Amino acid sequence: MKSLFIQDTLSKIGETVTLYGWADTIRDHKKVIFIDLRDSTGIIQTVGTEDIGKKMAGVSVEDVIAVTGLIKKRPDNMVNDKSSLGSIELEASDINIISHAAPLPFDISKESLDLTLPVLLDNRSLTLRHPKIREIFKVQETIIDAFRRACKAKHFTEFQAPVIIPEVAEGGAEVFEVKYFGHKAFLSQSPQFYKQIMITIFERVFTVNKTLRAEPSVTTRHLTEATTLDAELGFIDSWTELMDMAEYVIKYLCDAVKKENILALGLYTVDMPDTSLPIPRLKLREGQEIIFKRTGRDNRAEPDLEPEDERELCRWAQEEHGINMVFVTHYPVAKRPFYTFEDSEDPGYTLSFDLLGFGLEWLTGGQRIHDYETLMKKAQDRGMNMEKIELYLQAFRYGMPPEGGFSFGSERIVMGLLGLQNVREASLFPRDMERIDVHLPSLK
Amino acid sequence: MKSLFIQDTLSKIGETVTLYGWADTIRDHKKVIFIDLRDSTGIIQTVGTEDIGKKMAGVSVEDVIAVTGLIKKRPDNMVNDKSSLGSIELEASDINIISHAAPLPFDISKESLDLTLPVLLDNRSLTLRHPKIREIFKVQETIIDAFRRACKAKHFTEFQAPVIIPEVAEGGAEVFEVKYFGHKAFLSQSPQFYKQIMITIFERVFTVNKTLRAEPSVTTRHLTEATTLDAELGFIDSWTELMDMAEYVIKYLCDAVKKENILALGLYTVDMPDTSLPIPRLKLREGQEIIFKRTGRDNRAEPDLEPEDERELCRWAQEEHGINMVFVTHYPVAKRPFYTFEDSEDPGYTLSFDLLGFGLEWLTGGQRIHDYETLMKKAQDRGMNMEKIELYLQAFRYGMPPEGGFSFGSERIVMGLLGLQNVREASLFPRDMERIDVHLPSLK
Repeated sequence: MKSLFIQDTLSKIGETVTLYGWADTIRDHKKVIFIDLRDSTGIIQTVGTEDIGKKMAGVSVEDVIAVTGLIKKRPDNMVNDKSSLGSIELEASDINIISHAAPLPFDISKESLDLTLPVLLDNRSLTLRHPKIREIFKVQETIIDAFRRACKAKHFTEFQAPVIIPEVAEGGAEVFEVKYFGHKAFLSQSPQFYKQIMITIFERVFTVNKTLRAEPSVTTRHLTEATTLDAELGFIDSWTELMDMAEYVIKYLCDAVKKENILALGLYTVDMPDTSLPIPRLKLREGQEIIFKRTGRDNRAEPDLEPEDERELCRWAQEEHGINMVFVTHYPVAKRPFYTFEDSEDPGYTLSFDLLGFGLEWLTGGQRIHDYETLMKKAQDRGMNMEKIELYLQAFRYGMPPEGGFSFGSERIVMGLLGLQNVREASLFPRDMERIDVHLPSLK
Repeated sequence: MKSLFIQDTLSKIGETVTLYGWADTIRDHKKVIFIDLRDSTGIIQTVGTEDIGKKMAGVSVEDVIAVTGLIKKRPDNMVNDKSSLGSIELEASDINIISHAAPLPFDISKESLDLTLPVLLDNRSLTLRHPKIREIFKVQETIIDAFRRACKAKHFTEFQAPVIIPEVAEGGAEVFEVKYFGHKAFLSQSPQFYKQIMITIFERVFTVNKTLRAEPSVTTRHLTEATTLDAELGFIDSWTELMDMAEYVIKYLCDAVKKENILALGLYTVDMPDTSLPIPRLKLREGQEIIFKRTGRDNRAEPDLEPEDERELCRWAQEEHGINMVFVTHYPVAKRPFYTFEDSEDPGYTLSFDLLGFGLEWLTGGQRIHDYETLMKKAQDRGMNMEKIELYLQAFRYGMPPEGGFSFGSERIVMGLLGLQNVREASLFPRDMERIDVHLPSLK
């Protein structure tokens, strides 16, 4: 089993080692041949001359190879400052081709891949190998793992929410249907009902899920499959505590990326937020007023924000509060699911919030109705199938504390922080109306 | 927001505190009333007399309440040794009913719930509140989190595998179909293809997923939705390294449960494995021979093990090797997916393995074919739709190292360790042919 990764070779100067990886680039100068060897941790230059050089000439780009040789410091005038391992090289004494690669459809050794999105995705198994693309998913890994760590530090228990559900939680039309042994079933758009049930077991819970939405739109912000980070907490005194918790979590995530994704942050132009600053909080109507004053665009009668509104409010937050995030609260009752708590001091509006970050909706959350009778009435009014949501209702029938929670979209956070143009770039295998790995309309 | 959990009250003797939770049991002795208050961390006895006693008499079982009072040491003759907080009680000075509970369909305050499986599941949101049932899912949480920690400690990267897939990885019939914008799509039975692709990006990967199988059988071991723990690693020298890694991981999980689930281990009769002992490894044929010799049952011509065989081999491992686990290797080529590596030294049999634990199949794994041409031929022979699995094939076309991996079923491990009778007990919201939260055939 491989025991030495390329990033760890800096400490091996003067030693003979065998390194395993992919031939990233090959420069054949006839008398001497250079192969940049790439593994998941870094790239190192290998050099071959004479017999071993001849053997190395048989290597193609992306071949899987094992190179044995001496790790040497490069002469000062040969140091490559652009690479973290640019001060060393491996003087090859043996090379072994483990697995041959077919000729590539395009060069993937450039600093940035300049490909259209369809080409990027049609060749996903190849394009993911590019360090700049690969590092997007190291950032996603950090975001998801840091979410779990942030929650655990605050007494949250992780639970597993189901994918197949008997009834649609949010009553929306954008739901996938599954044939289930002759019954009608659906794919979960959110673990909402289950995280609320789990409040009565663990009080504070979190769950990481694929949520599935039959989004009929092809925008730069929507996926049919997204990895969402959900938390829910009971025994709150005020709904503002939910925003406090969400603010703690998002700052924890940003700090984790700062600390753990040095490589990614070096490859992208990232302006990481100053997490010592508070995130401003605005009612939707206040936000619309700000947009009107700043741009003249009058969406003050709208029940929701448009993408350009979200970007404008983030610009405002950056300019006025020094942080590229803002909580928007008090969405109208009609725009939120039946279980959302109405503000008794501001009737018609809910104790709900979105967190906008870097111009995108990153999170949605709010306080939920915890009184059984009120919830029953609201569910019936929205036409829910009460028999199918029995387990949900049961949790309230037998005593539910005041509670609420929130849900982050992990791809949206990664997209925002790294400044990606399309959320599909932040998903390893993005699914949309026209794509499940392959472009569906192109299939024979 | 609640800041004091019941488990932390032992250090609050002599202090006046407010505790939040559920009324677990109520004993009304007229002049004095006792309410056992339960939260997610423990149970404490609260005592009320005079006016506060009268107020406490209005509480029903499972009401959500806040009780304020003094934490006191109990007199020696009143100490309850069965409870971790049995040496203290809260002398109530105020009580507040936050949320009323309807009368319960059965008593949930007993030490063990003696309910049939359908009743247990029809009332899942209530029965999960029982500490003995709740703790099952603290064990599941540990198993899943420890899996991630075990992998991270060995240079694995976590990735997100998709749920909706264009083609069935294992060619089986037991797959759920999804209506996908007029196209045919399926629910993932395994992240197999994706974890193999990810080898070429991160070399060692792991992923935690819901895997979905349209199991038409109603056994005690099958769920249609399970939480599986997958790992895959590249640059192996031998397929036995995969078993070494799987053995390291399962022992890590068992050790984590021993350390982190004291409460659960006290509630169940658990014989945790001695992880200092090696797990024996047998070829399937050797295992069948052992079964024949021990029981006279002759399954030596069968291509797979029956449930009773799995139990027998675990008994053998316990008796002969002191550990309730055994690796069974070399399943026939025809019984394994097309990508499984054939043993050149034992033609017709694969370099694959199952790990049996506590009488159950806990894990399946093996080396995969990494040569593009060989894989193409095998996939074609099994009738795979080559166009739909293009991203999978692409990963091999452009250079794949020798690799393999394994997949654990988290519910099966929990079931085995805690000695549960049915895997449904180890799933928060188990799904089977007849149930998605509610019993489907009973719906009007």
